Amino acid sequence: MSITSSLTSTTLCGASVFPKALARSIEFPRNHLSTPFESSKICLTTYPKKNATWNLTRNIVPIQGTRCHAIQVETKESFTPGKKFQLSDVIEGQQFDREMLSAIFDVAREMEKIEKSSSQSELLKGYLMATLFYEPSTRTRLSFESAMKRLGGEVLTTENAREFSSAAKGETLEDTIRTVEGYSDIIVMRHFESGAAKRAAATANIPVINAGDGPGEHPTQALLDIYTIQSEIGKLDDISVALVGDLANGRTVRSLAYLLAKFKDVKIYFVSPEIVKMKDDIKDYLTSNGVEWEESSDLMEVASKCDVVYQTRIQRERFGERLDLYEAARGKYIVDKALLGVMQKNAVIMHPLPRLDEITPGVDTDPRAAYFRQAKNGLFIRMALLKLLLVGW
Amino acid sequence: MSITSSLTSTTLCGASVFPKALARSIEFPRNHLSTPFESSKICLTTYPKKNATWNLTRNIVPIQGTRCHAIQVETKESFTPGKKFQLSDVIEGQQFDREMLSAIFDVAREMEKIEKSSSQSELLKGYLMATLFYEPSTRTRLSFESAMKRLGGEVLTTENAREFSSAAKGETLEDTIRTVEGYSDIIVMRHFESGAAKRAAATANIPVINAGDGPGEHPTQALLDIYTIQSEIGKLDDISVALVGDLANGRTVRSLAYLLAKFKDVKIYFVSPEIVKMKDDIKDYLTSNGVEWEESSDLMEVASKCDVVYQTRIQRERFGERLDLYEAARGKYIVDKALLGVMQKNAVIMHPLPRLDEITPGVDTDPRAAYFRQAKNGLFIRMALLKLLLVGW
Amino acid sequence: MSITSSLTSTTLCGASVFPKALARSIEFPRNHLSTPFESSKICLTTYPKKNATWNLTRNIVPIQGTRCHAIQVETKESFTPGKKFQLSDVIEGQQFDREMLSAIFDVAREMEKIEKSSSQSELLKGYLMATLFYEPSTRTRLSFESAMKRLGGEVLTTENAREFSSAAKGETLEDTIRTVEGYSDIIVMRHFESGAAKRAAATANIPVINAGDGPGEHPTQALLDIYTIQSEIGKLDDISVALVGDLANGRTVRSLAYLLAKFKDVKIYFVSPEIVKMKDDIKDYLTSNGVEWEESSDLMEVASKCDVVYQTRIQRERFGERLDLYEAARGKYIVDKALLGVMQKNAVIMHPLPRLDEITPGVDTDPRAAYFRQAKNGLFIRMALLKLLLVGW
Repeated sequence: MSITSSLTSTTLCGASVFPKALARSIEFPRNHLSTPFESSKICLTTYPKKNATWNLTRNIVPIQGTRCHAIQVETKESFTPGKKFQLSDVIEGQQFDREMLSAIFDVAREMEKIEKSSSQSELLKGYLMATLFYEPSTRTRLSFESAMKRLGGEVLTTENAREFSSAAKGETLEDTIRTVEGYSDIIVMRHFESGAAKRAAATANIPVINAGDGPGEHPTQALLDIYTIQSEIGKLDDISVALVGDLANGRTVRSLAYLLAKFKDVKIYFVSPEIVKMKDDIKDYLTSNGVEWEESSDLMEVASKCDVVYQTRIQRERFGERLDLYEAARGKYIVDKALLGVMQKNAVIMHPLPRLDEITPGVDTDPRAAYFRQAKNGLFIRMALLKLLLVGW
Repeated sequence: MSITSSLTSTTLCGASVFPKALARSIEFPRNHLSTPFESSKICLTTYPKKNATWNLTRNIVPIQGTRCHAIQVETKESFTPGKKFQLSDVIEGQQFDREMLSAIFDVAREMEKIEKSSSQSELLKGYLMATLFYEPSTRTRLSFESAMKRLGGEVLTTENAREFSSAAKGETLEDTIRTVEGYSDIIVMRHFESGAAKRAAATANIPVINAGDGPGEHPTQALLDIYTIQSEIGKLDDISVALVGDLANGRTVRSLAYLLAKFKDVKIYFVSPEIVKMKDDIKDYLTSNGVEWEESSDLMEVASKCDVVYQTRIQRERFGERLDLYEAARGKYIVDKALLGVMQKNAVIMHPLPRLDEITPGVDTDPRAAYFRQAKNGLFIRMALLKLLLVGW
Repeated sequence: MSITSSLTSTTLCGASVFPKALARSIEFPRNHLSTPFESSKICLTTYPKKNATWNLTRNIVPIQGTRCHAIQVETKESFTPGKKFQLSDVIEGQQFDREMLSAIFDVAREMEKIEKSSSQSELLKGYLMATLFYEPSTRTRLSFESAMKRLGGEVLTTENAREFSSAAKGETLEDTIRTVEGYSDIIVMRHFESGAAKRAAATANIPVINAGDGPGEHPTQALLDIYTIQSEIGKLDDISVALVGDLANGRTVRSLAYLLAKFKDVKIYFVSPEIVKMKDDIKDYLTSNGVEWEESSDLMEVASKCDVVYQTRIQRERFGERLDLYEAARGKYIVDKALLGVMQKNAVIMHPLPRLDEITPGVDTDPRAAYFRQAKNGLFIRMALLKLLLVGW
């Protein structure tokens, strides 16, 4: 992306054209308030590293002072025309299309090499990530923080943002974000409220990654699931996937179904206790997107036909008083050695983890048990997203 | 500061002459116990980086072993005679005079440049800050940790030092400090007890910054407030400031009043509900320091005359059962667009944050809304203090 | 250790021959599954930095994919034949023999130099330590994290792993470890269950350090205690040590007794209230190892004869309702100035900390009060262990 091309007002101002984080914010004393054009001229002379947005596309100029974009020439990356799309935030799985996914997966594969390499990467040196968690999720937090540090970046962390003295005192999420963005270059947020990530991204002048917002979305989980299928099976078209267990409450299986619908000749099997069946919204979505799906109560028969058996945990907390129903439900579909016996040689078993007894420990030693490799893939996906959001392609 | 000049016993030993952190501690086997003079000779041959104090000026030599100072020649900084004062700890706002404040503000402005620059600063590389928080204050903690990391330093952090197993078991603050100072180069402490910071500083052989000790002091907040007035208004003499809201309980407005008293021709207006009026100790202090002040119940009239409207939150927790009084008090003085209408073009609205509804969201988009810039200034002030305490001028 | 010598299958594969962390794991697509020999050939061409184990010696190959070892040529360290033993994990004090201890102490002394030196060490640059604490122990955690950062390494930290959403949902420790090892290069674990560290180490493909597992072991405390005696007294053979206070419940005095039994002509005195006397298992162990020991109720008389007076805290929590017994016990043996009066000139007073009133503050200023130097030694011992586990000799 050349400096010149970036100076037509559309490319320069359009937030969709390049990421928030391609350039560092530059604040002017208010008595230097200048027109976009003037600012853009100023930009020509500066190549800052960190975050900025074209505030004139936002309604909070006065809060942050006037800023302008300056394009960072990312020497580490050669610009690939096919990858022209740019990431500003990661809010929901549905924001990604096939092309974006495959581009992100290419970067994730680069990240695998970096993670294994003998020298410390400095790709994100000097960048600061704030992990703003309103509910604890140590696994997800550690995965993001590891991703940032494997790339040479630094982390500010809070796991109890809910008791964030300010939040407790009634501060709005928007005000919190405006403060935290002053301390960091990217915000990874976990929240208990659906839609919180969208609100944060609308406020922030730096990239926001949704690390799960309540019953809402958990896009990085969805991405690592689909990335794992790609790496384990070698393709995403023309595959058959069994979604097993708690399909009514499982956020991950729902997101996965949405993403699978973007590929060709996908066949999905739903295998779950009656009480936690997949809901109609997903079934309708699949149908309207031409994805073949089928419900079954015979896990053995389904497993023998599938490329992927995606097992999930029956969530006790969803059954309230009815522990009898919970006990009945959780015992019904178990992945064990018997099931392995009928599965195809190149099929895999996945699970978002944590697992209780819905997969027996004996299964762990089978090469087709992919769930710990799947967890590791979360690291590579998060490294890729941090890289794309902070330094672009 | 030259090596030679630093070797007269007075300059070498006087803790006030250079900061704790100009030099790294050197421990000798106890059988090498030597006189100050002998040690100072030994010092000549060493140029360590990190913390030390002239223990003979302290009564805990045996605990830490004998140490001596060695001056670090700080090549990054040219020595400015006007800035000879040295910082050992940051305990209370009152410790700073006009000259110190302006010197600190100069450094804070350098820090703004560093924070915006494209390359990662390594000014504090190799230094370790311990954030020892006995009560959570995520905003303040993140601000300090961001400051340290923006300068290339590292952080050890604990947000629940109150349940610090040791503290819970009845360990004294002094013992905790003696342990933590062995792991770090500077301690940033938040405590629930007034005076705790002073006790910590008296014990520690490394610098201590008070990040708020209960009803006591919160000096970095006071510094960032006064720094914000300087940068927004361009001066600290000959200004008029309205302090609005809860003036009885607001720690920040009290500290700000103390600091403003150090400047010339300052006029202060107190605007607050009857029940949370500014206390007499401050009024007397201002009077005895020749600062003009006035109480008013007409915010509009005051705002039209002021350079700064400093709004604060009415703290519900102070009203106990009397929610009726709270509701009456909190509704009384609101900063809204109507108020903006009467304010001067170059005046600003400040607020320590978090804010509830004492400033309406509509105000945020006005260039005179300075409160988020004010929060950001906290980062620059903390960067400046860390730099001054650890590597000096 | 030369490449060639390392390629005989035994040296290459034997986990006992070099540490888990000498080489970085390399994963192959499963369709490249190769024999040990083939993999070892592949190894020749790679010199990765980080962790791996010869998975064929473990039963979880499929979980982690096939890996092979590659030897890292550690240029910083010359290989000393006398130090051929290698550390895979640190689980319990008893795993160390005399030779290992003295080798570790040599490294700890190098670490003292590094900690005091003016430049930031990069010995562990690029390495990531996960502090997985299932119960808070801020002192121990900060000590480990300081050790890692003083060597240029990075840290992922969680202090409430017990509420680790996954653990709370019933995930096994083994599954948690398999996930966390994917994010880090070494795990420092504190757990409430005796034996947890052993289980973690058996699962992990990266080194595990036990930072205390409930009533079980706390090996790094035992090592820093014995290291402190060595540095303060100058020897570990032919010394007399008084263990004072709560000997029934004190984990540290028990571990210390085990380690002292490895040395010659050691005399141990037990001085404790009747109700918290040293248990017979330790007495029998000492006797069967030819260590002379004696119980006494006369602290003054014992202190006059000893090189080390190791005082401990009477743990109130052990007395339940019987506060009368607690009060009687805690008051009985106090280290005060009177005791100093009878102690030998070169003897020292040690204490694991935190201390309450079993050592009077007046004692702190005596050169023989070694307990804060002892706490600092914990840093050097942990630096040494991290170095040995991650990059070897």
